[in-house]
Amino acid sequence: MTENEAPTKPAGPPQDLKDMNVLVSLCKQRGFVFPSSEVYGGINACWDYGPLGIELKRNVKERWWRAMCDRDDIEGLDAAILMHPRVWEASGHVAGFVDPLVDCKECKSRFRADKIDPEKLKANVCPNCGKKGALTEPRNFNLMFKTHMGALEDSSAIVYLRPETAQGIYVNFLNVQQSSRQKIPFGIAQIGKAFRNEITPGNFIFRTREFEQMEMQYFVKPGTDMEWFEKWKAMRIQWHYDNGLRKEKLRFHQHAGGELAHYAKAAFDIEYEFPIGWSELEGVHNRTDFDLGRHQEFSGKNLQYFDEAAKEKYVPYIVETSVGCDRALLAVLCDSYRFDGDRTWFQMHPALSPYKVAVFPLMKKGGMSEYAEKLHTDLKKHFRCTTDDAGSIGKRYRRQDEIGTPFCVTVDFDTIEKHTVTLRHRDTMETIGGRVPVEKLVDVIRDQIENWGR
Amino acid sequence: MTENEAPTKPAGPPQDLKDMNVLVSLCKQRGFVFPSSEVYGGINACWDYGPLGIELKRNVKERWWRAMCDRDDIEGLDAAILMHPRVWEASGHVAGFVDPLVDCKECKSRFRADKIDPEKLKANVCPNCGKKGALTEPRNFNLMFKTHMGALEDSSAIVYLRPETAQGIYVNFLNVQQSSRQKIPFGIAQIGKAFRNEITPGNFIFRTREFEQMEMQYFVKPGTDMEWFEKWKAMRIQWHYDNGLRKEKLRFHQHAGGELAHYAKAAFDIEYEFPIGWSELEGVHNRTDFDLGRHQEFSGKNLQYFDEAAKEKYVPYIVETSVGCDRALLAVLCDSYRFDGDRTWFQMHPALSPYKVAVFPLMKKGGMSEYAEKLHTDLKKHFRCTTDDAGSIGKRYRRQDEIGTPFCVTVDFDTIEKHTVTLRHRDTMETIGGRVPVEKLVDVIRDQIENWGR
Repeated sequence: MTENEAPTKPAGPPQDLKDMNVLVSLCKQRGFVFPSSEVYGGINACWDYGPLGIELKRNVKERWWRAMCDRDDIEGLDAAILMHPRVWEASGHVAGFVDPLVDCKECKSRFRADKIDPEKLKANVCPNCGKKGALTEPRNFNLMFKTHMGALEDSSAIVYLRPETAQGIYVNFLNVQQSSRQKIPFGIAQIGKAFRNEITPGNFIFRTREFEQMEMQYFVKPGTDMEWFEKWKAMRIQWHYDNGLRKEKLRFHQHAGGELAHYAKAAFDIEYEFPIGWSELEGVHNRTDFDLGRHQEFSGKNLQYFDEAAKEKYVPYIVETSVGCDRALLAVLCDSYRFDGDRTWFQMHPALSPYKVAVFPLMKKGGMSEYAEKLHTDLKKHFRCTTDDAGSIGKRYRRQDEIGTPFCVTVDFDTIEKHTVTLRHRDTMETIGGRVPVEKLVDVIRDQIENWGR
Repeated sequence: MTENEAPTKPAGPPQDLKDMNVLVSLCKQRGFVFPSSEVYGGINACWDYGPLGIELKRNVKERWWRAMCDRDDIEGLDAAILMHPRVWEASGHVAGFVDPLVDCKECKSRFRADKIDPEKLKANVCPNCGKKGALTEPRNFNLMFKTHMGALEDSSAIVYLRPETAQGIYVNFLNVQQSSRQKIPFGIAQIGKAFRNEITPGNFIFRTREFEQMEMQYFVKPGTDMEWFEKWKAMRIQWHYDNGLRKEKLRFHQHAGGELAHYAKAAFDIEYEFPIGWSELEGVHNRTDFDLGRHQEFSGKNLQYFDEAAKEKYVPYIVETSVGCDRALLAVLCDSYRFDGDRTWFQMHPALSPYKVAVFPLMKKGGMSEYAEKLHTDLKKHFRCTTDDAGSIGKRYRRQDEIGTPFCVTVDFDTIEKHTVTLRHRDTMETIGGRVPVEKLVDVIRDQIENWGR
C-alpha cells in the first residue's frame, strides 16, 4: 500500500465504547469538549464545548426545536435564568430541593447521608477514615446556587440561578397563551441553561453543575392528561430513535409509588445504556395542576384557562417532557463511537455530524489544490464542509472518521480531466457509486444523508 | 368597503418609533418580550422572550453565527458561564470591574458617585433629599454576581457569573487552535449569556442584568493588528446594514484617549440611534496581547503560538468584535417599527421575521379552510408559516403587520377553482404579481425574500 492508498477493510469487528475516559480524551483532542478553565487547573464538573462540540450541540438542539416548534400547537419561549425568588418558594425548591449532608469532624470528608451505608450512619462511623462518633448530624443542603441582585447583600436581594427551566414556562403560561391565541391542548417549548450545586457531579458531561435543558410543557384539559402522557412518551422515545440511537440501548423506566415526585401523577424516564450503566436521558411527567395551582396560590393571580368551546374555566394539567441537552449529545457520542482495533469513528447520523463533507486534494500539485478549494467553497453553500491537505489520504480519512464526518471527497488527476470525484463513506469505508460527476455531488450527498441507515 | 376588503393605502406618512414604551407594550401584547416573572410583579431588568421574540432572536443569532463560522478561518466555541475564579483576577474584573457608590444616610437613596453633579458631591449634598453632610464616602461596588460552588460557603468556593463571554475564548485559545489545526490569523466565535449586577439597568432590553453576547476574538500576528482591526470594523457595520438597519441610523464612535479601556490600543463603538439617543450596539477593539499575557502570568502556562512559516513564537494580538444580541434585536425592532396614523407594522428584513408567510382562508366555507390548511402544511416545509381564520381579512393583515410577517396568502373562491392565490406585501400593502399560481408560490416568496429592499 502506498502512502496515498487508504485501507478499505476494517481491522476487526467494531467495538462499542466501554470506558468513558476514552471518550473524554478523544473529545478534548479533537475539539468536542474541553475541561472548563483548563489553564487554571479546571473547575469541577464544568465543561466547554469546542468547535465540533458546539456544532454537534447546535444540531441536537435544532432537531429538538424543529420537532417541537414546527408543530402548530407548540410555541417557543426563552425565559431569563434569574427569576423572582418567590417562584422557587411556589415550586417547592426553597424548602425541598435539598440533599442531607453529614461531615466527618475527624477527616473533614463530606457525604450525602442517604448514600452512606445505613449501618455505618447508625453506628456513627466515618466511611472514609473509620473514626467512630466523628459524623455530624445530617443537615439539609439546598442545591440552588444563590446570589444577590442589586447593591445590597441582604436577604431581600437574594436570587437563585434557576435549577430547572420549567418554571419559566409556568409563570408565562397566560402571556404565551393570550399572545399566541392558542387553545388547549397546546405546549410551550424552551431550551436553556439550568444550574444545580450538585454534591457529587461527574461522569463527564452526564452530571454537571451547569447544564442545558430542552423542556416542553403541554397544557391539557383535566381528564385528557393520561392520554396525552402516553402520546408524548411515544413521541419522545421516537425522537431519540430518529437521532440514530440504537433501540436496544433505550428503555423506559417507570417511577414506582415511592419514587414519584410530589408533583407527579405518573412519570417515566427514558433511559440510555451509557458505559456507566442505564441512566436517565429524559423524563416524561404528568404534573397534574400542581404547578399552576401553586403559582396561583403564591402569586394571588388567577391562572385559569377559559375554554371557549366548553364554556368553562379550569387550571390545565401539564404533561412535561424534559431532556438534558448535554445528555442527549453524550448519548449520541457514546452510541456512535466505534473502534475496530485500529480505526476509531463516530457512526453518527449525518444530520448530527459537525461536518457533512470533507474535501481532499490528492496532491498539492496539478491544480488539485485549487480545484478542491473551489469545490469546498461550492459545497459549503449546501452542507457544513471542511478541507484537509495534510498527510496521506488514509490519515485524512482517519481524522474525519474520528469526528464523525460521513463523507469524504477526493480530488485527483481524473477530477481535473473528467470532473469526477471519489466519494468515500465513513461507515463502510467504501466509495459510493464509482466515480461521481462533480455536478451531481450535491444531490448524491443529500440523498445519502436523507437515506442514511446503519 | 365590505368586511373582507382590506385597505391598500396608507393612512398617512410612515412614522418611526419615538417612545420606547410603545414598543414595550406592543412586544408584550404580541408575544415578543414579556416582563420576567410578571405574575410575581416582575424582577427588575429581566425579560423573557416570547414565541415571536425567540424566533426573531434565533434568526439574529443564526445570521451572526453563519457570518462568522461559515468562514474557514473562524471556529465556534461554547464555554461555561461558571469559570475558575482566577480567570477574573487575571482579566482585571475582581479588582477593577466596579462602580463607585455613595449612599444618603438620610433618605437611603443610592447613587453612582461618577453620575452625581461634582459640585454636589464636593459639597456633600444629597441630590435626592437635599440634606447636607448625609452622603457616605464613595465605596467600590463590584458588578459581578457572586455565588458559591460546593457545599461550603467559604471564600475558597466563590465563583462568579461571567460578566463577559470573551474570557472563555481566551483561556481556550490553545485548545481550539490545536484541535482545529488553525493557523494565525484565525478567530473564535461564541454566543452566550453574561451577567452584570448593574446599578442602573433600564431602557427595556437595552441594559439588563442578564444578557446575551455574540463575541468573536480574532488572533493575529503583532504588527498586523491595526490592519485586521480596520477590516473587522468594516465587516461588522456591514453586518448591521445587511440586517436591514438604515445606514443613517448607524455610526462609528471612536474611543478617545481617556475613554480607552486599560486593555485597548484602539476601540470603536458601532452606535445606533435608538429612541433613547445614540447608544452602543457593538464594540470593535484592538486588545493587543493584554489578555493572553495576563492569563500566561496568572496561570503560569505558556500561551504562545508557534508560527511555523516564520519559525517564531509569539503571544498573538487580539481584535475583538462584541455585539449585544439583545441590543441587535432591539435595534431591528426600533428600526423597522412603522406607524402611519392607523396601521402599525415592522418593516423588518424578511430573513429576520418570525414568520415569513401567513395563510388565510377568505371564508370558512366552500373548502377554503381545508385548502388553506393544506397550503400552510406545504409551505411550512420551506418557510416558517402561520395561519389565521379569525375576523376580516383586513384585521388578519393587521395582526401579521404587527408581528412583521412580510407575506400574506389568501385562499379564496378562485383558488378552489383555478389554484391561484393573492400574495400581499407587508410594506406596500399591495398584491404581488396579480394572482400567483399555487405551484409557483414557494419560488415567488423565496425570490421576494432574497431580493427584499426598502
